[in-house]
Amino acid sequence: MEIIRSLENSRIKLFNSLKMKKYRDRHQLFLVQENHLIKEALKSGCLDTLILREDVDNPFDHEAIRVSSEVMRKLSDNESLNDAIAVCRMREGKLTDPHRLIVLEDVQDPGNVGTIIRTARCFGYDGVLLSSHCADLYNAKTISACQGALFELPVIRKDIREILEYLRANGIRCYGTSLKESRFLAQIVPAERFALIFGNEGQGMSEETLKRCDECFKIEMDNFDSLNVAIAMAVASYQMRYER
Amino acid sequence: MEIIRSLENSRIKLFNSLKMKKYRDRHQLFLVQENHLIKEALKSGCLDTLILREDVDNPFDHEAIRVSSEVMRKLSDNESLNDAIAVCRMREGKLTDPHRLIVLEDVQDPGNVGTIIRTARCFGYDGVLLSSHCADLYNAKTISACQGALFELPVIRKDIREILEYLRANGIRCYGTSLKESRFLAQIVPAERFALIFGNEGQGMSEETLKRCDECFKIEMDNFDSLNVAIAMAVASYQMRYER
Repeated sequence: MEIIRSLENSRIKLFNSLKMKKYRDRHQLFLVQENHLIKEALKSGCLDTLILREDVDNPFDHEAIRVSSEVMRKLSDNESLNDAIAVCRMREGKLTDPHRLIVLEDVQDPGNVGTIIRTARCFGYDGVLLSSHCADLYNAKTISACQGALFELPVIRKDIREILEYLRANGIRCYGTSLKESRFLAQIVPAERFALIFGNEGQGMSEETLKRCDECFKIEMDNFDSLNVAIAMAVASYQMRYER
Repeated sequence: MEIIRSLENSRIKLFNSLKMKKYRDRHQLFLVQENHLIKEALKSGCLDTLILREDVDNPFDHEAIRVSSEVMRKLSDNESLNDAIAVCRMREGKLTDPHRLIVLEDVQDPGNVGTIIRTARCFGYDGVLLSSHCADLYNAKTISACQGALFELPVIRKDIREILEYLRANGIRCYGTSLKESRFLAQIVPAERFALIFGNEGQGMSEETLKRCDECFKIEMDNFDSLNVAIAMAVASYQMRYER
């Protein structure tokens, strides 16, 4: 069995370049770094190349290329040395007759984007739409915060105006969120098809997008109007979940 | 005006040692690094020493000591250079006739602990009780995630058994959270006085603590039982908020 030991190996250089968005986009590939997430990637069929350290057993039902510890350390994001890293193929998310969607307008923090995708999956939403200026879906922190939901839930990145047009064209009611609204979350009666829209961490939703919503609400708070966006999304998406 | 330029200055060495829990505990002091949080610290009366870079105006209504950019960079947690850092005094949180409390058992991530304190403040809870093995309240990441709620809400750190005894002695009903429960969050009718208890990110609540709860519930989820603890806390604390 061949073991790659050179940091100058062309495949290793390509894999390592995937830490940067530019190269992820160019090659349509991304890295997954935790064993339980690699298992999810494998199940979902998007695994391209499995990389294993030379001295560990292969816990996956998939052939692997072997690398030295030094090479694995170079590819690793973690402080601790990984046993395995998966190179995965990006896939375009597809929505099929969606009833409940989450839309994020320019949410900047990869941890927030990932946590929101994980939460959307938990509460049975059909997909997450990211505006072009949101954090990258394939950033290591986004992937880690997603906890595998990325491999199960359609996530689509588009210009916010295209997203709003898509929602309108498909008869999906848009609920915007804003601290300036007088209507509260608990007063909203969810439409059969709807999208919940959340904005940037600092500025919230843009005025332009707010104006194009069918209805807006604020979350009931107690004299301290400061909820993290992933928390606001969780509270609203639970409150408006589908009761089966 | 004297400007401290030496990294060997004894006060600077003391302040810098506060990046470590051991020295924070010894001196009962901690560092606050963002201007809007320093303002909250000042309002709450726990500011001990305000440190300003030599070349910036003082935006605070408080006297400051001045330091060189080099010294400020050493004290900074951020990649960018701070204008100001506040050294603050720890205060023991005090509960006065609490009706709604959050209890965390061994929550490890400082961001989760901070986000939970921020959310508890938003939803009008009276305080947060941390078990001894929770992440440190005065860690830079906890303070940043709290977004100032730390200065407004009583937060108390105690052994989990002492916490449970306190709750029992004060007639506060304990609601535990567990994925194994068959009862759902939406079925709970909140008692007049209650505490919501959340466990460790990996293991959840300990069996021992679960057994000592008056009632337990799980959050309604859709075939993907994987909610971040701060998200679970937000959903439950909103659902059981005080309707004013």
